[in-house]
This record gives sequence, C-alpha cells and structure tokens, in this order.
Amino acid sequence: MKHAIFGESHGPAIGVVLEGVPAGVELDLEEIAFEMARRAPGKDPFSTPRKEADQPEILSGFFQGHTTGTPLCALIRNTDTRSRDYEKTKDLARPGHGDWPGFMRYQGYNDYRGGGHFSGRLTAPLVFAGAVAKQVLAGEGIVILAHIKSIADVEDIPFSQCLLSSELGWELREKSFPVLEDQRGEQMRQAIVRAKEEGDSVGGVIECAVLGLPAGMGAPDYGENVEGIVSQQMFAIPGVKAIGFGDSFGIARLRGSEANDPLYVRGGMVVSPTNHSGGVNGGITNGLPLVFEVALRPTASISKQQDTIDMDLWQDSKLTIQGRHDPCIVHRAVPVVEAAAALAVCQLMGI
Amino acid sequence: MKHAIFGESHGPAIGVVLEGVPAGVELDLEEIAFEMARRAPGKDPFSTPRKEADQPEILSGFFQGHTTGTPLCALIRNTDTRSRDYEKTKDLARPGHGDWPGFMRYQGYNDYRGGGHFSGRLTAPLVFAGAVAKQVLAGEGIVILAHIKSIADVEDIPFSQCLLSSELGWELREKSFPVLEDQRGEQMRQAIVRAKEEGDSVGGVIECAVLGLPAGMGAPDYGENVEGIVSQQMFAIPGVKAIGFGDSFGIARLRGSEANDPLYVRGGMVVSPTNHSGGVNGGITNGLPLVFEVALRPTASISKQQDTIDMDLWQDSKLTIQGRHDPCIVHRAVPVVEAAAALAVCQLMGI
Amino acid sequence: MKHAIFGESHGPAIGVVLEGVPAGVELDLEEIAFEMARRAPGKDPFSTPRKEADQPEILSGFFQGHTTGTPLCALIRNTDTRSRDYEKTKDLARPGHGDWPGFMRYQGYNDYRGGGHFSGRLTAPLVFAGAVAKQVLAGEGIVILAHIKSIADVEDIPFSQCLLSSELGWELREKSFPVLEDQRGEQMRQAIVRAKEEGDSVGGVIECAVLGLPAGMGAPDYGENVEGIVSQQMFAIPGVKAIGFGDSFGIARLRGSEANDPLYVRGGMVVSPTNHSGGVNGGITNGLPLVFEVALRPTASISKQQDTIDMDLWQDSKLTIQGRHDPCIVHRAVPVVEAAAALAVCQLMGI
Amino acid sequence: MKHAIFGESHGPAIGVVLEGVPAGVELDLEEIAFEMARRAPGKDPFSTPRKEADQPEILSGFFQGHTTGTPLCALIRNTDTRSRDYEKTKDLARPGHGDWPGFMRYQGYNDYRGGGHFSGRLTAPLVFAGAVAKQVLAGEGIVILAHIKSIADVEDIPFSQCLLSSELGWELREKSFPVLEDQRGEQMRQAIVRAKEEGDSVGGVIECAVLGLPAGMGAPDYGENVEGIVSQQMFAIPGVKAIGFGDSFGIARLRGSEANDPLYVRGGMVVSPTNHSGGVNGGITNGLPLVFEVALRPTASISKQQDTIDMDLWQDSKLTIQGRHDPCIVHRAVPVVEAAAALAVCQLMGI
Repeated sequence: MKHAIFGESHGPAIGVVLEGVPAGVELDLEEIAFEMARRAPGKDPFSTPRKEADQPEILSGFFQGHTTGTPLCALIRNTDTRSRDYEKTKDLARPGHGDWPGFMRYQGYNDYRGGGHFSGRLTAPLVFAGAVAKQVLAGEGIVILAHIKSIADVEDIPFSQCLLSSELGWELREKSFPVLEDQRGEQMRQAIVRAKEEGDSVGGVIECAVLGLPAGMGAPDYGENVEGIVSQQMFAIPGVKAIGFGDSFGIARLRGSEANDPLYVRGGMVVSPTNHSGGVNGGITNGLPLVFEVALRPTASISKQQDTIDMDLWQDSKLTIQGRHDPCIVHRAVPVVEAAAALAVCQLMGI
Repeated sequence: MKHAIFGESHGPAIGVVLEGVPAGVELDLEEIAFEMARRAPGKDPFSTPRKEADQPEILSGFFQGHTTGTPLCALIRNTDTRSRDYEKTKDLARPGHGDWPGFMRYQGYNDYRGGGHFSGRLTAPLVFAGAVAKQVLAGEGIVILAHIKSIADVEDIPFSQCLLSSELGWELREKSFPVLEDQRGEQMRQAIVRAKEEGDSVGGVIECAVLGLPAGMGAPDYGENVEGIVSQQMFAIPGVKAIGFGDSFGIARLRGSEANDPLYVRGGMVVSPTNHSGGVNGGITNGLPLVFEVALRPTASISKQQDTIDMDLWQDSKLTIQGRHDPCIVHRAVPVVEAAAALAVCQLMGI
Repeated sequence: MKHAIFGESHGPAIGVVLEGVPAGVELDLEEIAFEMARRAPGKDPFSTPRKEADQPEILSGFFQGHTTGTPLCALIRNTDTRSRDYEKTKDLARPGHGDWPGFMRYQGYNDYRGGGHFSGRLTAPLVFAGAVAKQVLAGEGIVILAHIKSIADVEDIPFSQCLLSSELGWELREKSFPVLEDQRGEQMRQAIVRAKEEGDSVGGVIECAVLGLPAGMGAPDYGENVEGIVSQQMFAIPGVKAIGFGDSFGIARLRGSEANDPLYVRGGMVVSPTNHSGGVNGGITNGLPLVFEVALRPTASISKQQDTIDMDLWQDSKLTIQGRHDPCIVHRAVPVVEAAAALAVCQLMGI
Repeated sequence: MKHAIFGESHGPAIGVVLEGVPAGVELDLEEIAFEMARRAPGKDPFSTPRKEADQPEILSGFFQGHTTGTPLCALIRNTDTRSRDYEKTKDLARPGHGDWPGFMRYQGYNDYRGGGHFSGRLTAPLVFAGAVAKQVLAGEGIVILAHIKSIADVEDIPFSQCLLSSELGWELREKSFPVLEDQRGEQMRQAIVRAKEEGDSVGGVIECAVLGLPAGMGAPDYGENVEGIVSQQMFAIPGVKAIGFGDSFGIARLRGSEANDPLYVRGGMVVSPTNHSGGVNGGITNGLPLVFEVALRPTASISKQQDTIDMDLWQDSKLTIQGRHDPCIVHRAVPVVEAAAALAVCQLMGI
C-alpha cells in the first residue's frame, strides 16, 4: 500500500491517494470519521480554534461499500482558512519551522500560507490513510494502540508496565487525552495551559504498540528491516525528531544480560517475560508486541517574540507570530502516530 | 547510489554492489583500506580475536583508477572462520539475536553459522560502500564525523558543546577509541573490560555530524525527509535501536522558546547560535550541521548462561555461548555509522 | 516526477497526483486545456458522443501561477455518466477488455461501470500530467511530437522520411487527425466509418519523436535504459500492445551494415544520416531524435454480437454491447502517447 | 526478487546479486549449468570463438543445498579476455554500439574493453538469475519456453500455430538452434553463414511463452501492468529494439471482431480458441499463455569497414572491427529472453 499525500493548509483541498489497497475490504466509514475526529482541531480549550469539518470525500477505489483494489483517493476541502494572518509575515522565517529550509528547497515558490504543505493539517489525510490501513490489518488480527508517554516533564506509565491488549486500545482511543493514568493527563493539561499562558509551547513523547504481528516479518537488510520501515513512516509526521524501539536509548545503558529477552515455550508459543527489544531482533519481528516511542518537538509557532531573518530583505528581524496555534500537538498526534504505524505494518506485511 | 550487501559470516565471501556511483571519481584505495581497518576486528584486547584481512577486491565499475559509472562490486573473502563453534548450539536461539525471528522468517533455511547474514561482519562491505560515498561527497565539500557519545554509563562531551570542523573529524578518525575527551574513553574501556570479565557486554550511543550539507535538501513528504532517509540507513546497522536528531528525545522536554533555533544573517550566510533541530526543519536541511545520535544495544552474545528455546525440539533450554565475541561493538561501529550516513547523504543529494 | 492516477469512469471524479514537479515552473493553463481538448471525446462524428467538460481543477502544488514543488493534484469531475448502460451486462465479460482478468484480480469488487478504472477515460489525467511534463521539458529545449502512422491498413508517411522539427510538431498538434499526409488521414477516417457502420472497430499505430534530448541519458542496466523506461509508460496506456524503437521489428530483417547508423562530426556535433536505432544505443540516448512507434489494438467494445462468459452464472453467454463507444481511439490517443513520452523523458532526465 | 548485475567484459569478473529469493528453494545446480551452457559462446562454427567456462560460484544466500532467503550472489570469473584487440580502436565509436552514448553518459570513464558493461557477456549472470527464477516458478507450476521466430528473412512457425505445452519447452531447450521446424533452422544457419562470409551480421525475432500463469496477475496502472513489467526486463537485454504481445503490431490491422478473444467455460475453466491478446487484457493476465515476441537487431560488430567518429580527436574516421564477434546472437539469446521472462514473472507474482 503506497500513499501520496497532497495539499496545502490554505489551498482548496488536501487529500491522499492510496495505491495497492486490497480489493473487497468493507470500509466502516463511521470508524474512519471517528479516527479523523480524534485528530481534528478545535476540540479542547487550548488547541487551535480553527474548525474544519474534515469530512473526507472518497473519489475512487470504493464501490458498493467495499474497496475496489484500484487507487483510492480521499479529498478533504479546506474551509476555515484565514490567509491574511500570514501575508504580513510571509518573508519572516518562523524559527523551528520549515520556512527557511523550504524557501531554499522550493526557491521561494512554496505556498507559505499556514505553513502550506508543511502544515500539521496534512496529517488529516494521513489519519484517513491509516484508518483504512487499520481496517485492513484488523482482518489480520492486528491492533495498534498508543498513548501520550510524556508531555513536558510529566510522564505517563510506560507500556512496559502494562498488560497490552486490544481492550486497552479501545479504552485509550475513547479518551480525548489518551494516557494510561488520567491524573498524569491532568498534570499534562496544566503544563500545556501554563505554556500557553506564557505564549509558549510544549512537546512530548508518544508510545505506540502493535499487537498481533506474527514473528518473521521484515529482514535485516537495508529498506526491509522493521525499525527502518517504521521510522520512515514516523519521520513523515511533522515535529517527530526521535524514535526508539523497546527500551529505546535506555538500552544503551544496560548490560547484555539485562537487555536480552529470554525465550520460553509456553502452550506451544514462544514467549518472553520482558520486551527490551520492542518486538524486533535482527530487523525481524519476534512475535512479541512491536513497541516504540517517538519524540515530538514543542510546537514551533509561539507568540513570544523571536529573532529571525527576513528572507526577502536578507537581514535580521523580529517575529511575533499571530494567528491560531496549538501550544501542544502531542495529544492530537496520537492517532497520527497510530496511522503511520498502520501504514508501516501494511508495508511490512506486504499489503 | 543504491547498494546491495550480500554474504554470510561463514560463507565463502561477503560484499556489496553499488549502483549509480558517478563516473570519473578517482578512488583513493588507501583511504578505503583505512576506513576498513577502523572497523576491522582483532585490534584491541577486548574485541573479538577473529582476524580478517578484509581486503576488498573491486571486481567491476572501477577502471584505470576511476569509477566507471557502471555497477561497482567489491568482494571480501572470509578466511578466519571457525564454524564448528556454532554447530553444537545451532538450534538454541541466542536471546537478543536474530536467530529466532530469522528462523521464522526463513523457515530454518538461513545460514546459522556465526550469525550468517545477520552478523556484524556484514558491516565490512557497508564500510566499503560508505568509504566510496565519502569520497564522492568530499568532492562536494561534505565531511562526516562521529564519536562515541556514551558507553554503558560513561558519557563523552556532546557535539553541541564543540566547534564542529573537518579538522575535528580528522582527529577523531585517527583514534582507535574515537571520543572527544580521551579520559572518558579510558573510563569506557574500563567499563568494557569489567563487563567482559563478568561474561557480559555493554552498549552505547554514537553521535554523528555531517558538515557542508547545503540548505534545501530533502522534503517534508514520506520517503523524502532527511530524518527518514538517515534513519532507514542507520537501522540497517545491526544493534541500532534508536535514533534522534539534534536534541533527540531531550527536545520533548523543552519549551518551544527553548527548542526553536533563532536565525541571523551574518556575512551573507544564515546562521544560528544553537542547533536543537540537528540541522533539519520540516524534513529539509537548514544549512546547519546535520547532527544525530544512535543507540546501540549491548552485544547480544554473552558468555553468561541464558534461558532460551531449542528451535528444533521446541522446548525450553539453557544456552552458554562459546566462541569469539565482542563485549562491546560501539567503538567499532563508529566508522559504520559514518558509512551509513554517507550513503544517506548521497541519497539526499540525488547522487 | 512520479504520478499516481486515480478514478473510475463513472465514479465522482478522476485525477492525478504528481510528485517531484520542479518548483517555480510557470504553468500555462491554456496550453494544458488545449492538450486536454486534443484527447477529449465527442469532437468528431464517429467518436463516442459522451461529452465531458474535462476541466481539471488544480488542488495543490500550484500557487500564484507557478508550481510549488510539492505534490500537485488535479481533479476532473465526471459529469456525463450513464451507468444504467452497464447494469444489465455487468456479469458478461466483454471480450478483449479487462473485465474478466479484472474480475479475477479484484475478486469482483472492481467498479464495472463504463470499464471503471480500466476505462480509456483515465487517459485524461494522464494527458494532464503529460502537459505539465511537456512544459517542464520545454524549458530544457525538448519537444515531443507524434502522428498516426497507420489506422487499419492505411499508412501515413513515416517519420524516417520527414525532417523532424518542432515546427512539424506544432503543425501536427493543430490537426484533429494528426497525420503527415492529410489524404491518408481522409482514407483512415473512411476506414473508421466503414468499421463503425459494421458495428466493428479498427486499431492503428502511433509514431512519436522526442527532439532535443541530449546524448548520454539512460544506462544499459535494468530499470535505467531508455527503451525500458519509455515502454513502461506506454504500456500503461489502455490498448497498447507493442512498441518498437527506430526501425522497430523491421530491424530484425536488416544486415548489421544496414542497421548501424554511421557517425560523423559536422559543425562540432555528432550526426548521422540515418536513425535505425531510434536515437538509442546500449540503452542510452545518442543525441539523434528518440523515435518509437506503438501499436494500439482495435477498440474492444463493438456492437457486433460476441461469444463470452457470464461471470456470475459461470456459463457461456452472448453479448451485444450497447452504449457509446469509439470505433477507433487511435487519433485520440496521439496526445496520450505524447503525454506518456513526456513523463518518460522527465524520468530519464532525473526530473 | 530484485537483481543487480555487475561486471565488465574484460574485468576480473561478472556476476549478479539476487535479493528476495524465497527461502528453502532446493536449487538444482546442474539445471543452472545447463541454462548457462545454452547461452555460452564458442559452441557453433559461426559464433564467437571466445570460450568461457562460465562456472558461476555462488557466494551467498545458498546453504546446504537450499536458498537461505538472504541475498544470493553468483560470480563468474572472466578468463579468456584478449583486451589488446580493443586498445587500438578504443576511441573509434563502433556504429550501432553503446560506445558513443556511453562516452557521453560516463564522460569517457567507462571500461571500453570488449564493450565493457555493455557487452553481451553480461547476459551470463542474467541467465543465472533467470535459472534461479525458473526453479522458483517451477514450484508454482509455471513454465517458460521460447524459440527463434525469425532470423534475417527466414521465419519459423509461430507459437499461435502450435499447441503450447511444457513438453514442447523441454524439446526446444535441448536444441542448440531452438526452432519449431528444424528445416527453417537450417535455412537460418545458412543466412548467418552468408552474412559472416560477407563480414556482416543478421538479426531476428524471438518468441516466448509463459504457461501456467494464473489469471488476475498485474494491474492496469503504471508500473504494475504485465506488458510494462515484461518490457522493462526485455529491454535490459542488449540488442532488443521492439516487443509485442499476442499479435504484436499485427493487431493494429485487425478489426475488433477479429482481435477480441471470445471466452467460453469448459470443464469449469475459462478458455478461448484464440490468443490475439497474448494472455493479457487491461494489463492483467487472463489465464491464457502469456505470449510475446522481441526483435533483436543484427549484431552491431561487423568486420566490414564503417564510417564513424574518433571520440578523442573529434573527427570523422573509418573503422574495421577486429576481434571475435558473433554474426548473429539470436539463437544464443533464446535462453536470455527466457531468463528475463522468468524474472518478470517473479515480479508479477510478487516473488
């Protein structure tokens, strides 16, 4: 399953073309809408007040309630755009954003309004694609779940201290703030509010698990190992700066005797009491849950004044970003990480 | 430049085919040999005593001292193989290794001797490929350097506290233990020796920087962003479990006002006093050094007894690994990380 | 430049996403509309009376009159669909069509209305993509022209007997029936009318030339040679069954001394009085015009009664196809072949 | 299954790396040697007297008689090279060869000896790869056969007049001159001898059939249709200039009512008495044999004097090619076409 995402934040529409979707998958459109809603803006007091219906229109590849097997295109019209916010400051590169590298990459021809093609809004078609992928994977008994592992310095319980199950997944996806311990979630919200009040933003870490993946998927080679395939999907999410599998960077401090997951045969199945490797050895799944975490940088758009350059005058300047911005995108990114994971798993399964 | 690495640890030979090497590059074979030697085993008291000449024979794509532009194949014969070490325990999956997932992936047909195609020995052709890539990139003014950021709990100074330069790179590559502060390197060696004495192993973190990369390379999209391209190369290195760019996971704890790198015009160039983003915004290089770190798990092969399964009898078993093994591969992996980085940068530059 | 075409003949819309379009190309939208009109149905007395506005709406990748360098999506709404024509016969596989193989490929889930994703209508977004590619190539001094080489048994003069020039291209593209000798075109029209009157259809051959391609593009290897790259684009056009470069199959009857194009230096340029190789040797352009021909099968949809199977009842049946159908698509396919050639040349040029 | 072919005619070795070979295939090495021998030079009175053992050494991906599933590399050492033949004329571009385009492509750095990487000798590793692919496909009940359809103006019976069967394939592959009617083969040999006596060469057409391919393989889209996949493999064979499926260019002269293959259900199977489409409709296999023909140009190397350019002096020159050359490569190309077909079919089957 290949996907091509197109669109700009303030253009007429954004969308995605999915090639290689298996034929005959009965798509649950309400389920897709639910996933879209999990990511949608304007739900909570501190996120961007931009409101988008985000109703995807399926233009192709879907007939009589089933996928046809030919390319599936979904379109989302942009409706609530206020481009004037951006005109005044279009030559001022927002620090931490793709403005300056994008100016060099596209020689100034990129659509600067609302971040254009760099906008977090482009994760809406990604969630659509992932929602389709999840339904394909559900037919294979594969379930994907994720939670906020941390925001700023507030940490949730890690997956390694939980019994992972599809039920836990259902529980998490019902939450607008998907954490394992809601009290921590409350503290995270407070950290977000504090940052917002100071015209600032916070980042965080999302942890994701894939259950039901059979052992033997992937290969050690370049372009075929599990970690590389998952990473490439994750780094296409705006703001992701790091990824780690299993114990992540923590494994570098362990001894081999601590990091190796012992293997046992129980009830005809190969099991392990630990999962330091995050379900992957030698680039191949080992049958344990695939577990990884990704770091999301704090939102680059902040209202505090910043030093930057004027790309037209080619001189130093000061920038105070106006407009609607999220002080934190971590909680909204949870379904996005799940979506990217679903696309990665499809790739791994040869779907 | 595409590469296909082939071979097994105890087969007749390992090697690599490089497609898309530009024509007319004058290869410095001594330089290549030097890079190969940096990775080669048997150099220090605690690494595997396996000694391999690791003399690559260039079979094609190289004529009269220059690359021809057609596929370049380099072959490295395996000479010092002691396969009997592996016969006895071939059905016992070594915990932390690719044995068990590989058994499932290849239905038991993979060459188990010395880890077969999963072996760290396969990084020798990768270093060869990277050495060619480095020479191509040198012509573009691009330099790659790396150091051991940590082993076990001993940390070197991070690149963020250094003035990065090609001179620093030359200095580091002369060291058999490439750290910025040699005293820390001594402590790392001690940590390795301690682990070895206890029949155990240690892991670590390697930090890598690419200097001279122009701004504007990459794109935000899937498969084209800098972080995804670099990650996919890194995760093809055995033992890499995590990667982070710039401040890596640390960025998740910063405020936006701390994480954003301010921009200034100095001497006609765009500069920044900080590099929290590791030289990438929106998936595109911003002209600052590309900086990232990767975590290497502790060597999975340890001589301590471990619980595991017998894949033939399908029952629990105990395993004590014999044979020659590195208690730490981090220092030998430094040129490997550089090589993979060189291949990633070629990809990014459209080479 | 990669393209993903989506849509079904009778779905809500068809379209294309173009990835990798260079930034800053000033698109001439009238020129694009002209190319679309060349292919559009309903222009002549014997072609399908289905009339489509075929107005592409550009949804992304285009800003302030220029390409942005990010994915460009164009959408064409389907308006004049009469799906009832197909309901009655949906289980009867139309001989020569993709119905039966598509049934097997997509397990019966494909959209059967109007040929669905197999429809010649899907060449509209291909022409759009090609029109963009042509404008990109025009900036490199590359021009693409094509003519009807034959329809049924009526043959036009071949390109090998013409002086190829961009002027000739401009002349040809103004013709609704692009032949070099209009009298032959008249005979071709008569052959089409005769076939139509008999409820039958005719096929033909289109010859295409690319002028201005520099020598040295391509490589002998799989996936990189000119012929393979062009072929893969051509066979994505419905109805193309054969392709030949230069003398095509005729070269197999020549002696080496006849087939080899002698080389001379004239005015500092390498020239040849002949072009039996069609501008390619060893898979690489030689600086002469790239010339090739493609065979288009007679339209599979005919109104004559045919023997076929009922895919639902799994038994023999008789089929008389109703609905609107072209007795010949060769003349309408001329801009389609040019479009596919433009995409191939972009690929070859690394655009 | 991906393949990377490397090597030059007069370098130390040529070879191939096969990635994605399924694990556990029991390779019949004698069978592979037989296929290699079919292509090998020096067998008949009129072909190049260069004699090569062409013994492939399998370096990886093969263990205990079976494929391992990891990359398989086979190496063929070059032994009988006489490079001095080429030194004198290295700056004279041989008309019809890749010399001149290669000079432009590789800026003069390519290995010119014996055609270097452009040499027909590079088809030896291709035949190796195809022999492996054939054995993989045999396990799926798929058989590939080919014959010389014509040499110069002598034509063999076409496959459309035969009952295609695996037995016919076995019969054909035993012949050093694989034709259906041996008398025609004798006439072809005479045509070759005549050309050779005149210092000239001849070309021809090879027809190939794939039996046992299930219906439903492929897709109409770019990069996925049967014809495009097969073509891309075929055009990687040196000297192939045209390809046609089923009736090939002949179909352009048929009426729709003649070209459409009627369908019937017989014994629960879908059958057709004709196969004008060559087993493909809409880019997807229809269950009939996949049949196609390819045109091979007459060997470019002839001993007659030719007009050409001196690429060093950049002036007109005369060339009389010395050295050992085939006056016809069509009969030796038969196993090469089969090999490329086998690789294409693997690709189509997702192997």
